Amino acid sequence: MAERRGAGFTEDQTKNLRISLRVRAILHKERSAYQEIAVYETEEFGRLLTLDDVIMTTEKDEFVYHEMLSHPVLCAHPRPRQVLVVGGGDGGIVREVLKHASVERVVLAEIDERVIEVSKRYLPTIASALDDPRVDIQVGDGIAYVADHPEAFDVILVDSTDPVGPAVGLFGESFYRSVRRALRPGGLFAAQTESPWFNEELLERIHHTLREIFPVTRLYWGAVPTYPGGFWTFSVGSLGPDLDTFDEARAAALDTKYYCPEIHRAALALPPFVRRVLGG
Amino acid sequence: MAERRGAGFTEDQTKNLRISLRVRAILHKERSAYQEIAVYETEEFGRLLTLDDVIMTTEKDEFVYHEMLSHPVLCAHPRPRQVLVVGGGDGGIVREVLKHASVERVVLAEIDERVIEVSKRYLPTIASALDDPRVDIQVGDGIAYVADHPEAFDVILVDSTDPVGPAVGLFGESFYRSVRRALRPGGLFAAQTESPWFNEELLERIHHTLREIFPVTRLYWGAVPTYPGGFWTFSVGSLGPDLDTFDEARAAALDTKYYCPEIHRAALALPPFVRRVLGG
Repeated sequence: MAERRGAGFTEDQTKNLRISLRVRAILHKERSAYQEIAVYETEEFGRLLTLDDVIMTTEKDEFVYHEMLSHPVLCAHPRPRQVLVVGGGDGGIVREVLKHASVERVVLAEIDERVIEVSKRYLPTIASALDDPRVDIQVGDGIAYVADHPEAFDVILVDSTDPVGPAVGLFGESFYRSVRRALRPGGLFAAQTESPWFNEELLERIHHTLREIFPVTRLYWGAVPTYPGGFWTFSVGSLGPDLDTFDEARAAALDTKYYCPEIHRAALALPPFVRRVLGG
Repeated sequence: MAERRGAGFTEDQTKNLRISLRVRAILHKERSAYQEIAVYETEEFGRLLTLDDVIMTTEKDEFVYHEMLSHPVLCAHPRPRQVLVVGGGDGGIVREVLKHASVERVVLAEIDERVIEVSKRYLPTIASALDDPRVDIQVGDGIAYVADHPEAFDVILVDSTDPVGPAVGLFGESFYRSVRRALRPGGLFAAQTESPWFNEELLERIHHTLREIFPVTRLYWGAVPTYPGGFWTFSVGSLGPDLDTFDEARAAALDTKYYCPEIHRAALALPPFVRRVLGG
């Protein structure tokens, strides 16, 4: 095989699959207390944020992930007022949450303050809402924050990194039990839960656990170009509403590029190979 | 950036985006009269077929593309009997077409006989139906074949390579007019039409053209892990049925891993950023 590498960022998405983006400039690189944070100017995807050499978000495609983690459960809740985002220091989820007029407060529980600062500086279109007066930034351990705030939130959104290193706890049973306690009656939570192509066992385990804890659970998906396999899943635990019914007028009025009422319904349709992964 | 390349196949999906698959063995490589044909044994995706260093299909994810190009229009047609596949020498589309009991004959118009032979030898699960007595293999120019067979087919499926080199003609107005003439009354055609992330102008032009030629046109999509951006589009021109109504019982009875009645409907739901690409 000819060597054809130019200057670029390369992620080993699995040990056998790799994605490379051509890079015009490295804008920032630092080792924080938790991880290596880098921002690149890419040719194809605009600016790219990576943590420990894993793609977190790019300016070109960030809207898919941020809209799809937040709006399905926010639109399924009749009137979300108190919202918690765990992780998500780049601010993309917070920006989407604040598109819902009923929201009075969004708590951002991010462990690494440097991700917030770097995003504000280099990714202003993603971090655009972090200075909104409704945003309450809590720098610290999201797991502890959830445990310390029973019955506090209408919606909890878990915008985590992959389930390795510091984020492992965000995919575990005790965290999900804690999330359930932190929800107000009728509340919902959603978390990014990786790819059905490469993380079958993780997905199966998560849904087995969720079904034990929440009266209503769902898996839905969106197509994120820069995540492994493109087909990206989100998992939901709810104390009340399922995602089949949602506020379609509110969904239709959102200023979005991927999410819309038709995509809300489409995201709930699972191919047979994904249903098989979920088991029950 | 550290060099971390192992033995692998690398595709430049765009000039700025690259995918690499770890390879256990190169099973076959030849230059046919038309292109370089290669088959690799990959670690993650099973066997991989490439033409001119572009990923055509892999054993692991081929079902998404093959099911999604064929079943939506086949299920929208009340009783497909005569079907034409243009390109598609690996046999994956033919295999899917023959899952519909009403089909009496599938013509495979493939320009490169070597793709057929290599697929039969190295990709038996994909090429599995090529020896079926209902299959009529026509080695030659698909454009000429279509032009020579007016009102001959209920469904025409265009399983082409990217719109560079020999396949350019398969994305042009005169071919689409010829396809229309080759359809029987009430017939439909579907073609793979690339990614809305990287081929906006192509998609816009195709749909502008299709709307001038066909009374009914649609764009739908599926999530193909090994194609650039994951979000892959398929475009439809129809002389009769739209895709909103389809034979749900037939769709539900198919032995498939991605396509199903719920996914048929979901595939028609377009994110706002894709609707904007389509213009009208």
